[in-house]
Amino acid sequence: MQKLNSILEAVKPLDRSKQAAIQHKLDFLTKPQGSLGRLEELALQYALIKGTLEPTLKDKLAVVMAADHGVAAEGVSAFPQAVTQQMVFNFLQGGAGINVLARHSGVEVAVVDIGVAAELEAHPKLLARKVANGTKNMAQEPAMSREQAIQAIEVGIGIVEEEQAAGLDILATGEMGIANTTPSSAITAVLTGRSVEYVTGRGTGIDDQALEHKTTVIEKAIVINHPSPEDALDVLAKLGGLEIAGLAGVMLAGAAYNIPVVVDGFISGAAALVACKLKPELKDYLIAAHCSVEMGHKIILEHLGLKPLLDLKLRLGEGTGAVLGIGLVEAGVKILTQMSSFEVAGVSQAG
Amino acid sequence: MQKLNSILEAVKPLDRSKQAAIQHKLDFLTKPQGSLGRLEELALQYALIKGTLEPTLKDKLAVVMAADHGVAAEGVSAFPQAVTQQMVFNFLQGGAGINVLARHSGVEVAVVDIGVAAELEAHPKLLARKVANGTKNMAQEPAMSREQAIQAIEVGIGIVEEEQAAGLDILATGEMGIANTTPSSAITAVLTGRSVEYVTGRGTGIDDQALEHKTTVIEKAIVINHPSPEDALDVLAKLGGLEIAGLAGVMLAGAAYNIPVVVDGFISGAAALVACKLKPELKDYLIAAHCSVEMGHKIILEHLGLKPLLDLKLRLGEGTGAVLGIGLVEAGVKILTQMSSFEVAGVSQAG
Repeated sequence: MQKLNSILEAVKPLDRSKQAAIQHKLDFLTKPQGSLGRLEELALQYALIKGTLEPTLKDKLAVVMAADHGVAAEGVSAFPQAVTQQMVFNFLQGGAGINVLARHSGVEVAVVDIGVAAELEAHPKLLARKVANGTKNMAQEPAMSREQAIQAIEVGIGIVEEEQAAGLDILATGEMGIANTTPSSAITAVLTGRSVEYVTGRGTGIDDQALEHKTTVIEKAIVINHPSPEDALDVLAKLGGLEIAGLAGVMLAGAAYNIPVVVDGFISGAAALVACKLKPELKDYLIAAHCSVEMGHKIILEHLGLKPLLDLKLRLGEGTGAVLGIGLVEAGVKILTQMSSFEVAGVSQAG
Repeated sequence: MQKLNSILEAVKPLDRSKQAAIQHKLDFLTKPQGSLGRLEELALQYALIKGTLEPTLKDKLAVVMAADHGVAAEGVSAFPQAVTQQMVFNFLQGGAGINVLARHSGVEVAVVDIGVAAELEAHPKLLARKVANGTKNMAQEPAMSREQAIQAIEVGIGIVEEEQAAGLDILATGEMGIANTTPSSAITAVLTGRSVEYVTGRGTGIDDQALEHKTTVIEKAIVINHPSPEDALDVLAKLGGLEIAGLAGVMLAGAAYNIPVVVDGFISGAAALVACKLKPELKDYLIAAHCSVEMGHKIILEHLGLKPLLDLKLRLGEGTGAVLGIGLVEAGVKILTQMSSFEVAGVSQAG
């Protein structure tokens, strides 16, 4: 808890003292003012977080947290639980969607076992940080103890602390965990006050009947555990999961170290909900990469006031949308730092 | 006209004989089916155009056509006409938005003087292909003769023919021409049948009064020249401009050589309207990069049935949106060619 408390304290309101200077620089680049739209907004946000008109963006990391969910026993996913560990192996081999898209965007991938329900063989690329062999079944009991939730958040914090010491400019969040849209929907319902039905979707692709069942399971979990909407740690612990907790830690630590965090889809969004409830100032350090097909994700983005960059109908998770988002942030930063001004280029301005 | 006719004949309906095989490959990559959304659609389209399950994407080119517009004399733009040539110089120096974003996406830039109203100094990076010193003022007479329009289209065709001989996998379109949203709105109104008022916007940033004036100028140009909506060359010649004609040629030649063309914003969209009117089969070779702030662009995309990839509130032109779009196409192609299948990775499928 001490590590979490220190980080919460270290997240400061975004320093806007250089905003006018950054905006002035953007406005006098050789283009009509504001004509690069959201790329200019990204450049401004990035430069504010870094506190400079000449920010660099070199070291890019996607933290992909993997964990299992006791609630998978309720049959809420189209895939068997073993897929979590199989996909971790796929990540380590470099053959998954996140690997391909991270390479495309020049982003390193950190694969973290924070709670896979199997003993994973040691691998030089695997960060073994298991808090538990998956969560408990939230439809029968709390998914985690409060201590486990804090421990998992602190795993995320610890990874960012290690990585930032070696140089880290931007973070992307990603995850793998069969059944993890289920706790994400549960968290979203409780923290945004929307109905479970409204924020629950088809995840990896379940049919109508399975969707109804999934909704019932989530409603039951909320009734049984009665998480307190005002206590984000209570919500997180009772509904899960370990990777969601870990990603909340990644986001908070990112903000504490002035590292912008590009948030992936629905599951990462649920982590952002929890983390922003713990520290509302976090929001200004987050960038929403895309709007997932899952309705719950749209609700989260609206609730947090985040505008997604991409709408590509993605619903894979893993951080795939987030690493594509990093490519756009980088484009914005390059606009700010590499474009010529009207003065330098000898171009006339609007009359 | 012979070059144009040959190219029109060479654009074939997209060969879909490998569609089932490509889709099967996408469906058995390690992800829920369809979960990479539009990236998978891009991969399919690209692979169909290339006619292979293992397409490569290496040589990327943005063709940026610059030209002036006689109608600028009517005061329809916020910027003076001299900015066209100043920006060409900026492109050659590498300091413009398109240069920065093209470098970001690994795209080469071909800068073409197809009709700048000034003698430009020779420069190793400038393709000097001037058809005229800008168009005539369409509010008083036809912007071009029909012969000039064809000549400008054939300039675009010629550039693609030269470049593809050296190796070319994908094209992006871009342009620079003070006042060129004016002919673009005029073309859009005539070819889509919408009112001038509906498809006319603020371009680089004019105020309410100037917008009303711009609308009146376009209405006058259409009344004076009475272009025939069924004759795309007539519309193009009478309303302009040279860069729009050149880009229509680039698109047609791209399709003829099985090179996908990523279409930038409103002005490129107007060129796509003209080119698709000349050869409707072209549409399947086009990829709409983004939805510009200009309402007319939205109308064009709907009319052509193209779904934009990005919505970043861009309104700069130059090809800036298109080169970002290339980045997403490349991501899709890498998904198809670099991801592991369930079988290879040993991952279980949905039950």
